Amino acid sequence: MLEIAFYIAVTAEAMTAALAAGRRKMDWFGVCLLACVTALGGGTIRDIFLAHYPLFWVKNPYVLLLVCGAALLTIAIARVVHRLHWPFLLLDALGLVVFTIVGCNIGLEMGVHPIIVLVAGMVTGIFGGVLRDVLCNDVPLVFRAELYASVSIVTGALYYFGLMAGLHADLVVPGAIAIGFLLRVLAIVNKWEMPKFVYDRDLR
Amino acid sequence: MLEIAFYIAVTAEAMTAALAAGRRKMDWFGVCLLACVTALGGGTIRDIFLAHYPLFWVKNPYVLLLVCGAALLTIAIARVVHRLHWPFLLLDALGLVVFTIVGCNIGLEMGVHPIIVLVAGMVTGIFGGVLRDVLCNDVPLVFRAELYASVSIVTGALYYFGLMAGLHADLVVPGAIAIGFLLRVLAIVNKWEMPKFVYDRDLR
Amino acid sequence: MLEIAFYIAVTAEAMTAALAAGRRKMDWFGVCLLACVTALGGGTIRDIFLAHYPLFWVKNPYVLLLVCGAALLTIAIARVVHRLHWPFLLLDALGLVVFTIVGCNIGLEMGVHPIIVLVAGMVTGIFGGVLRDVLCNDVPLVFRAELYASVSIVTGALYYFGLMAGLHADLVVPGAIAIGFLLRVLAIVNKWEMPKFVYDRDLR
Repeated sequence: MLEIAFYIAVTAEAMTAALAAGRRKMDWFGVCLLACVTALGGGTIRDIFLAHYPLFWVKNPYVLLLVCGAALLTIAIARVVHRLHWPFLLLDALGLVVFTIVGCNIGLEMGVHPIIVLVAGMVTGIFGGVLRDVLCNDVPLVFRAELYASVSIVTGALYYFGLMAGLHADLVVPGAIAIGFLLRVLAIVNKWEMPKFVYDRDLR
Repeated sequence: MLEIAFYIAVTAEAMTAALAAGRRKMDWFGVCLLACVTALGGGTIRDIFLAHYPLFWVKNPYVLLLVCGAALLTIAIARVVHRLHWPFLLLDALGLVVFTIVGCNIGLEMGVHPIIVLVAGMVTGIFGGVLRDVLCNDVPLVFRAELYASVSIVTGALYYFGLMAGLHADLVVPGAIAIGFLLRVLAIVNKWEMPKFVYDRDLR
Repeated sequence: MLEIAFYIAVTAEAMTAALAAGRRKMDWFGVCLLACVTALGGGTIRDIFLAHYPLFWVKNPYVLLLVCGAALLTIAIARVVHRLHWPFLLLDALGLVVFTIVGCNIGLEMGVHPIIVLVAGMVTGIFGGVLRDVLCNDVPLVFRAELYASVSIVTGALYYFGLMAGLHADLVVPGAIAIGFLLRVLAIVNKWEMPKFVYDRDLR
């Protein structure tokens, strides 16, 4: 079930990245490349950080075809996509929490420190979007957006401490996904934000 | 012969990167650093993706000296470089196809899936330029330029399927280089481009 | 002693990164993330380049807490920070030389080529700042700033050749730190700069 959710999340991330590419007037190849970086970049960085080789998409290269297919499909249906605003946001929120749990899971399998388990989840959840924004020449959204990274940390912590408390994975996985997903949706609806740090003197 | 072509390609990439650095008014050190990132970045990312350690420039550090030497030479001869417009474009095109074949080759040696062989070639061929553009604070050219990445994929595919068809490497390597090179030059001359995806609604 | 200097340097880098984040109006999470990237990014890239696993912060995750703590402290005391202009510049200079020596040290332990020892030091010293500037959507300062990277190379060379000359580490470490630190401070005071390469013709 987590695997199916993972492929849905990868597809959703690829499609939102394709729209970002379209706003930059990229060519079809650029659309596919940006989709790959966004949908697979977080997991790639996590695997490199943890020396978890082979990378997940080297092991299973068909995920690259899935991402490029989703990106090209987005080009084809772009005219109706704007009517899908809410479904997209929901899929993106689902992607965030699912990626987080997949990342935490790999950290757990490798037996790293609990802090690193949460970091592995967060890197998987948010770094794809960071890479997308860097390649699109923006300051990454995650530095300023509604509770995006915080949702990732909360989801990871629920998952980790749920498992540590002896609960069964069949209960903890859907529970953490549901709570994280709900938190993200509430944050979007209510425009919840972390407090900002504003400093306008020049140090250097 | 591939090795000689590789060093020519590294030198050419270092020189074009140095000119990009000059347009940003970087200091001499910045010129060398940008040249290293551009000329060696694609191969470095490929090695990291495939866990192909030690990195090629850690194994053979003199390539760093070659790159820095080429970058400093470019500063010295900058006044005549604009007369060398075409030779530069040709060397850059040669670099693209040679890097691609070197990358595919390493994928083949490691026995990865054919899709990953092509990805290894493409990463080697184009990611140096992507890193250069990110550090220069541009949206990477490869997302919008003439058939740049496509040339890399075609070259890699010719090389891979040529070898799979049982042809000898002495035939396949120069053949793939020649066809890829010609395709790139024709794309520049005729301004061939991939179709662009333009999407101007704001999703978020 | 080098270890204490390392933690001071990490803290200083985290605090300067937090101020950079404040100038971009990032939220508290963004401040912590940018602090982590800046303070730990150089060492992370070095570890990945040398396949020196586990990464230093995976091995010792408490350094992540130190960095986030320093970043949040900076938010709390931001109003008095501008009076600490000089202490900050001095700590930043100390960070540069200490990071460089730590990086060279790891290169030496792994028995790599002398050129790579110096590269390992330089990557550790300056790439955190490069990543910070890329995420803040600036052209990295190091490409244009006063003798920043040069100080790193000189410090690394002093350390390496001092050890090779048979001097004791207890002498070479403080010596290289002192000279590198002094060189950096003199460069700031006197606005010493590397010559710049200015090229304003368009190649492509």
